[in-house]
Amino acid sequence: MLGWASTMSETALHPDRLLPAWQPALAIARELYESVADLPIVSPHGHTDPAWFAENEPFANATSLLLTPDHYLLRMLASRGISYDALGVPKKDGSPVAGPRDAWRVFAANIHLFDGTPSRLWLDHSLSWAFGIEEPLSSDNGDAVYDTINARLGEPDLRPLAVLERANVEAIATTEYALDPLEHHRKLKRHGLIGRIRTTYRPDDVTDPDVPGFAGNIAKLAEMTGEDTEKWPGLIEAHRKRRAAFREMGAVATDHGVASAVTADLAERDRQKLLDGALAGTLTPVEAEQFRGQMLTEMAVLSAEDGMVMQIHAGSKRNTDSSLMATRGANLGADIPVPTNYVDGLQPLLARHGNTPGFRLIMFTLDETVYGRELAPMAGYWPALMIGPPWWFFDSSNGIRRYLDAVVETAGFFNLAGFNDDTRALLSIPARHDVWRREICRFLACLVAEHRLSKASAEELAGFMSYQAARDAYRL
Amino acid sequence: MLGWASTMSETALHPDRLLPAWQPALAIARELYESVADLPIVSPHGHTDPAWFAENEPFANATSLLLTPDHYLLRMLASRGISYDALGVPKKDGSPVAGPRDAWRVFAANIHLFDGTPSRLWLDHSLSWAFGIEEPLSSDNGDAVYDTINARLGEPDLRPLAVLERANVEAIATTEYALDPLEHHRKLKRHGLIGRIRTTYRPDDVTDPDVPGFAGNIAKLAEMTGEDTEKWPGLIEAHRKRRAAFREMGAVATDHGVASAVTADLAERDRQKLLDGALAGTLTPVEAEQFRGQMLTEMAVLSAEDGMVMQIHAGSKRNTDSSLMATRGANLGADIPVPTNYVDGLQPLLARHGNTPGFRLIMFTLDETVYGRELAPMAGYWPALMIGPPWWFFDSSNGIRRYLDAVVETAGFFNLAGFNDDTRALLSIPARHDVWRREICRFLACLVAEHRLSKASAEELAGFMSYQAARDAYRL
Amino acid sequence: MLGWASTMSETALHPDRLLPAWQPALAIARELYESVADLPIVSPHGHTDPAWFAENEPFANATSLLLTPDHYLLRMLASRGISYDALGVPKKDGSPVAGPRDAWRVFAANIHLFDGTPSRLWLDHSLSWAFGIEEPLSSDNGDAVYDTINARLGEPDLRPLAVLERANVEAIATTEYALDPLEHHRKLKRHGLIGRIRTTYRPDDVTDPDVPGFAGNIAKLAEMTGEDTEKWPGLIEAHRKRRAAFREMGAVATDHGVASAVTADLAERDRQKLLDGALAGTLTPVEAEQFRGQMLTEMAVLSAEDGMVMQIHAGSKRNTDSSLMATRGANLGADIPVPTNYVDGLQPLLARHGNTPGFRLIMFTLDETVYGRELAPMAGYWPALMIGPPWWFFDSSNGIRRYLDAVVETAGFFNLAGFNDDTRALLSIPARHDVWRREICRFLACLVAEHRLSKASAEELAGFMSYQAARDAYRL
Repeated sequence: MLGWASTMSETALHPDRLLPAWQPALAIARELYESVADLPIVSPHGHTDPAWFAENEPFANATSLLLTPDHYLLRMLASRGISYDALGVPKKDGSPVAGPRDAWRVFAANIHLFDGTPSRLWLDHSLSWAFGIEEPLSSDNGDAVYDTINARLGEPDLRPLAVLERANVEAIATTEYALDPLEHHRKLKRHGLIGRIRTTYRPDDVTDPDVPGFAGNIAKLAEMTGEDTEKWPGLIEAHRKRRAAFREMGAVATDHGVASAVTADLAERDRQKLLDGALAGTLTPVEAEQFRGQMLTEMAVLSAEDGMVMQIHAGSKRNTDSSLMATRGANLGADIPVPTNYVDGLQPLLARHGNTPGFRLIMFTLDETVYGRELAPMAGYWPALMIGPPWWFFDSSNGIRRYLDAVVETAGFFNLAGFNDDTRALLSIPARHDVWRREICRFLACLVAEHRLSKASAEELAGFMSYQAARDAYRL
Repeated sequence: MLGWASTMSETALHPDRLLPAWQPALAIARELYESVADLPIVSPHGHTDPAWFAENEPFANATSLLLTPDHYLLRMLASRGISYDALGVPKKDGSPVAGPRDAWRVFAANIHLFDGTPSRLWLDHSLSWAFGIEEPLSSDNGDAVYDTINARLGEPDLRPLAVLERANVEAIATTEYALDPLEHHRKLKRHGLIGRIRTTYRPDDVTDPDVPGFAGNIAKLAEMTGEDTEKWPGLIEAHRKRRAAFREMGAVATDHGVASAVTADLAERDRQKLLDGALAGTLTPVEAEQFRGQMLTEMAVLSAEDGMVMQIHAGSKRNTDSSLMATRGANLGADIPVPTNYVDGLQPLLARHGNTPGFRLIMFTLDETVYGRELAPMAGYWPALMIGPPWWFFDSSNGIRRYLDAVVETAGFFNLAGFNDDTRALLSIPARHDVWRREICRFLACLVAEHRLSKASAEELAGFMSYQAARDAYRL
Repeated sequence: MLGWASTMSETALHPDRLLPAWQPALAIARELYESVADLPIVSPHGHTDPAWFAENEPFANATSLLLTPDHYLLRMLASRGISYDALGVPKKDGSPVAGPRDAWRVFAANIHLFDGTPSRLWLDHSLSWAFGIEEPLSSDNGDAVYDTINARLGEPDLRPLAVLERANVEAIATTEYALDPLEHHRKLKRHGLIGRIRTTYRPDDVTDPDVPGFAGNIAKLAEMTGEDTEKWPGLIEAHRKRRAAFREMGAVATDHGVASAVTADLAERDRQKLLDGALAGTLTPVEAEQFRGQMLTEMAVLSAEDGMVMQIHAGSKRNTDSSLMATRGANLGADIPVPTNYVDGLQPLLARHGNTPGFRLIMFTLDETVYGRELAPMAGYWPALMIGPPWWFFDSSNGIRRYLDAVVETAGFFNLAGFNDDTRALLSIPARHDVWRREICRFLACLVAEHRLSKASAEELAGFMSYQAARDAYRL
């Protein structure tokens, strides 16, 4: 192995990073970026842990803060033959794994693997922003960086709520399952923090019959709501109640993680039959998809009623490595995108509520081929539809460029839902929003430089896409 | 809502618009563009109304000229919750909708929705080119612009034929169904205008068994041609006669709008069976697709015989909003692209005529993933195949860039069919050809700037792609 | 037809060709390119003829060297109506075709068809590099160029081994079927040339039941190895022996050309049943795919055992023009890409060996939509997986740009297998590696110019991607 230089020293956090590297576009982009760099952050979809904000305890160490919860980092290291043991990822059976300092050393020694990836940009930004560390992480300084971070973590300005404050986060949404008791949010409510921090209703635990323990979950839902959830009307009524409970904890949106965008609009009798099969565990894969599809339509019906914005995150094949799933669990990097078909998939739902005033559905995909072929033409016609920002692997500079290239001409800017960071990593929030804002300014600056958009419009759109679009889309 | 500036005042119709915004590519592109900007327009595929040219009456008002017939505009406004009523789109039941001035006001007040879209470029170009209106449309000037346009519409240079003359349109094709009596074209023929204005044979009304009234159409075709169209040989003979009749009205091409590119080459007996089923209305969806596929192959056989250039526009799922279809009809914005498979689809047709000298088939798609994977490799092998320009949602600056990026390296320039505007909006014709020419010059200039193409070749190719390629492809 | 200028005279082999045409990226790219331009060539996958190197005879003439074996050239000329007869491509029935000089004239007269294509770049580079011909080929100089080439071909520095030497080829792999006796490689071994020249184990002749003569091939495999290849364990043992024999001739890799990436991991009994059906010629298309899929998994098992790197080239629909196949044979331009699904396809194989230390599988595709959606996420997780360079139609400047754009952010640089030229055309080897290196330097320079990567990292990555990555990936 060569001695990889892998240093960003000349470039880490250059003020012009990501902006067009030629004139006159650079000058225009700089001006646009300056006008949006300090806008508040609105993050209406994400996976931060509400316990952080409810408890507001300091983070334990650099590894548990920055490495172990970040599946982007874990997966890339694993792909080069580094074991999850060496990265300190706990095992279900409790057998020992590397300690945090050793795991950090492995990370630091392999930092070159992230050259050219968004992870590298986010990390450099986080280290600088939160810890004042400007020297890029490397084998040489790994231990020193680890110690610096750990020393700083106890300080008040690095507690979770202080981080939100410092990052100028106006609103952030967490994501909880339907059966979640929302205890942390209750505490946040007592502290007057609902509004800045909000939950999101993600009922996959009771809408996906392939979830382990599905029948038990449906029973639990009955307990929580006092409804007969083994009957379809009772099941829907139970959702209605849980949605209301989530709204009390600030929820403005629901979210649905599904492998495909298939929806259904079946007769009452057929729905009950599916529910019976789901409870009995006898559904075929096609029937299970129908069940999920019917539930999506039911969620649309409820959204049309209660005004919660519906989100569909379609197209992730989860847990493709069964050995990893068996030994350590989910969300560690083995989820892989699959093709999605939104145009056929959403047809039943749209026939029902595509034109219903007040109903809104934001679509996310991991299949970039649907940006131009499906999402933009659909959002550019149906009043109900908006396009979410690029998701997961595509929440990156080039990913954002391909997205804007593919959607804006057909859907315009005003059918886009702005940005959300979708992150589990607290410190990456300012970094991710910064990348989005830079890319938006880059895109607009190129339009201006090519005389396709006036400077004045670009200025308004830069602010809109950086901040207001997310507020509008999620009705904040 | 912010007070959207949405003004192109600094930039509308900048002489360098769309050209590369950096040197030396800009200088090269400017020189190329100057050499092609004033070439005549050849538009061998489109949907202008032949009655305009046959009657040569003035247009009624700004709204019926520019807004109501433009599904790009209607769909985008609808997507933001503006009703088709408010846009003045007539209802089948005749119930009242907004008048033209009110509809125009709604349009002007929402013009910001088109920032970054090709519609905006086309509109600005049309207003300047036809009416001398250089100030961008806005809420503020909406009424004044409306009045200016209406005042000008009565003048002789804005009659349809004068528009063709002023736009330097050398040849334009309209599109008529097989059963169309071609009355307007007859009148045009009497005026010596066939040649500049031509029809195109689009027999979807008698080749698609899913068309409402299909059996009646087949009966009507029998009447028109004196053939027994309930028997396969008679049906083909009837097509042969209609094709000849269309050729007398200048037709050089046929066109086929199909959801998939599936073709078939069945035994005589199986064809008759499909026809029987189509007439009886008993075909399954798979059989209906087979019928359409067989008809495509028959059209290829006839094209090999009579030299008419065949066009396939595949991949639009029509009328996805059944409520819009029921209340107002087709072509109003609810058609959405679907994936297309040209490589398997065309196999039977190509086995028959892929190598037949004189047979030519031009392929169009709404699925950009097939540009590089299917269309370019296929056109770069089969003598019969050419690739049409980017279609519909992709007839835009970025759409053209992605197209050229994906097809030229594999198919070269000489398997491309040049440009056609495919428009229903007369005044957008010069605008659309101008965008194509600018993008061609941009692409060539970048190749020259990267030393991948000589300046001399770029000059020849700029002219070829702007004008001669369409003439050659359609044998004009 | 216009008199196409089609001259690259101003630009052929400009020192900055393909590099970014704007500053400061150009200056950075130049510096990076200078540091890698003269690195040795490592080409671990390709289709050069081992007889060339074993016999080291001079090539016969310009046409048989440059035109007739190059399906990129043949197909494009054919697509514009030029017959394979006129191009001198032999017919199976031995009937006469054009002689080499006449074929060359046709080629020269149509050289403009290759404007904007990689073929043009490769040809210009080859003519300059091998023959000192700087004037671009044209109608005018076609005969003179032909004579110049022929005159030079007899000189010692244009013999095959001298070409390798002059091109600084450190290692090149040929590709042989399992039943190949490897005679040429034996001769090379006697001359001490194994190492610089290596074979590759491509057992499609005994793993694809759709290959004509499959049962006979299996019988021949039994003869060569002394194993009972009609029984599954014997068949596998026979592969084990052939792989060892290939390794003695320098093989470090296997290669598998399959239409889909489907793999299987069936029970022993089911495997034998498939083998029985394959030998009897009774497999359905689905069963034949299962057989191929099972064989891929078996190859993975053997690779995990013997360390040979496995390659899958998936997604070419072969011989789509049956008339060409019947009259002249395969590999002449009628192979067309089809969609590929790697994520579902590889699941059984990965469940078996995705995490096995030492097992490595390099994936190639002709479906660019899988770069970002499947290949990069998969290679960025599974230790076993790497992504091969852009293949066939996509081994071009824009093809490489789209590839790097789509894969690097998710898979990083270190899950990429560097470059291989995959060529049948000896003289195109330096040209193709040069294009790759220029594009790598362009990509890195743009990252540096946008402050996304340090200059020092870019310098290391330029060398790595140009040379070391291929060595590492193939364990050379």
